Amino acid sequence: MINFFDNHTSLTLESGRQLPGYRLAYSTIGSLNAAGDNAVWVFHALTANGNPGEWWPGLVGDGKLLDPARYFIICVNMPGSCYGSTGPLSINPITSAPWFHDFPFFTTRDMIRAYQALRIFLGIKKIYMGIGGSMGGQQLLEWAVEEPGLFDYIIPIATNARHSSWGIAFNTAQRQAIATDVTWKESNERAGQEGMKTARSIALISYRSYETYSNGQDETGDDKITGFKTESYQRYQGEKLAARFNAFSYDVLSRGMDAHNLGRGRGGVVAALSLIKARTLVIGIETDVLFPVQEQQYLAEHIPGAEFVAIRSAFGHDGFLLEYEQLGTHINTYLLQTKSRAASPVR
Amino acid sequence: MINFFDNHTSLTLESGRQLPGYRLAYSTIGSLNAAGDNAVWVFHALTANGNPGEWWPGLVGDGKLLDPARYFIICVNMPGSCYGSTGPLSINPITSAPWFHDFPFFTTRDMIRAYQALRIFLGIKKIYMGIGGSMGGQQLLEWAVEEPGLFDYIIPIATNARHSSWGIAFNTAQRQAIATDVTWKESNERAGQEGMKTARSIALISYRSYETYSNGQDETGDDKITGFKTESYQRYQGEKLAARFNAFSYDVLSRGMDAHNLGRGRGGVVAALSLIKARTLVIGIETDVLFPVQEQQYLAEHIPGAEFVAIRSAFGHDGFLLEYEQLGTHINTYLLQTKSRAASPVR
Repeated sequence: MINFFDNHTSLTLESGRQLPGYRLAYSTIGSLNAAGDNAVWVFHALTANGNPGEWWPGLVGDGKLLDPARYFIICVNMPGSCYGSTGPLSINPITSAPWFHDFPFFTTRDMIRAYQALRIFLGIKKIYMGIGGSMGGQQLLEWAVEEPGLFDYIIPIATNARHSSWGIAFNTAQRQAIATDVTWKESNERAGQEGMKTARSIALISYRSYETYSNGQDETGDDKITGFKTESYQRYQGEKLAARFNAFSYDVLSRGMDAHNLGRGRGGVVAALSLIKARTLVIGIETDVLFPVQEQQYLAEHIPGAEFVAIRSAFGHDGFLLEYEQLGTHINTYLLQTKSRAASPVR
Repeated sequence: MINFFDNHTSLTLESGRQLPGYRLAYSTIGSLNAAGDNAVWVFHALTANGNPGEWWPGLVGDGKLLDPARYFIICVNMPGSCYGSTGPLSINPITSAPWFHDFPFFTTRDMIRAYQALRIFLGIKKIYMGIGGSMGGQQLLEWAVEEPGLFDYIIPIATNARHSSWGIAFNTAQRQAIATDVTWKESNERAGQEGMKTARSIALISYRSYETYSNGQDETGDDKITGFKTESYQRYQGEKLAARFNAFSYDVLSRGMDAHNLGRGRGGVVAALSLIKARTLVIGIETDVLFPVQEQQYLAEHIPGAEFVAIRSAFGHDGFLLEYEQLGTHINTYLLQTKSRAASPVR
């Protein structure tokens, strides 16, 4: 299911650090048609992987919005992550040992630059649709700015043009939590794991909303003074992540998110967004605490011809992973409308 | 300025733990008048102290809303804190050593029960006005429910009837951050200090808003990929707290806040609120992330005759410490209106 693409060309990152080469782990489902115009590139968020059928089952798969019978669907694990692409646990060819603390962070721009060679390798000349939420949407926007002719459609969801100071504050607190873990100094796969559990507990709050917690975690009685459900839930979510992720990846991806800024080197965010040529539907979630809807409204205001829609969700930011029906309906409607518009004669 | 009240009577806490006695540090300014009807009891929030002129200078002091020329103003340092009242760094009389990890947490109800003896000692039979924000408001509400005849007026600000699951999630993440600090196991004043810095960094986010960060921390240029202002700010605020607070106090006060529930043992929150007899003005802050306005609306709906007002602030929850003018105006107006109402004949 997961394929590997090894690029032996060196890659210079925005930080100035140079990688001698890199590996990308990716999945594809469906087939590229003869016209080569049915590719859909899916971008995953912070701790997900290159298999969107796993974390977006309501949108990707047979009979779903992104149906492999119709589309050639590709998703790459972000470099820096731990699901097969080059990351902190990979072997540094210079030292023949894992990178660990020495792994350079990839900005969202570095990431999409790493994807360009894979796109060419796969023979994709044009991408029918790019879609992604949160940090996935950040990468998508970077690419749509960097190569304006590449995408027919882009669907950035619950994301932004430049990571906010508010978002950086959340990420900073999470990195502080990792750094407080005395094992974080060590060079082994489990370094900083306890700190990462706290980081996840912090992040979880930003992914949800006051209402999500009220609906899911409120006690039914009034007797307790300790041992609240919420407390167990926060700890449990940390444990769950620690069983599948490592603090090195968490740390570098978090730095990459903070560095996200479409406007860097392009005369600012407004100038960058004006370069986008893809037909764009920006989707926001009304209850999103981390990427509030004003960020998506801003995107839609500055991307030429873009449309904006806000979906309702009791889940806050996590709504982008859960509200399949609303997402599917809005995207479908947008595709149909814009197609018929393109097909009708100019009046 | 700070006085001490030592109560040698034992106090049984809601947890079942028993303290042989306790000390309260408190300040008073102004004098109790002959009628004994001019006392104003101010309740401080999580990391503040019993000197409201210091942390509420716009509201407390000569010529201010709470003017010592007019009122006898008292504020007690919360037990569990580290500004003079009994807390984790105090000596446990049984062991003749500091309590440290063994200090029992006080619920907001335990706190006001500890204050009752001080009120009697000071000769205050009736409190003209009780006022407090956040955890201070939680204590105020507890007292107004526990002794319905005690207050003429109460002004709970940016607070709630029962701490929310959302709030408990924030506090849990903060306690996780402290527990991740390897020194937290130690028994000395500096145990867990690094963890507490992270905890403060988390808390700070909940005290502000997306807008506060945009206004104060956004970079002016687009060039940076590391070293963002926000990151320094989060770390600085942690350092600042660590210079004046300790992780033991932080931990127990946070547990006390989580346990806040007016409804415990009283047939639920609605029944508890219905007991309040004081004239009540509930104040919320529109941008409050941690204690959103629906919590204050809820209070006003269920406290007999209460009024509710929301103030505007770019500072989120911290608005209760900063928006002097709006707070002062609303409280003044309320006092004048209700007085004239009381004075006018029944129509």
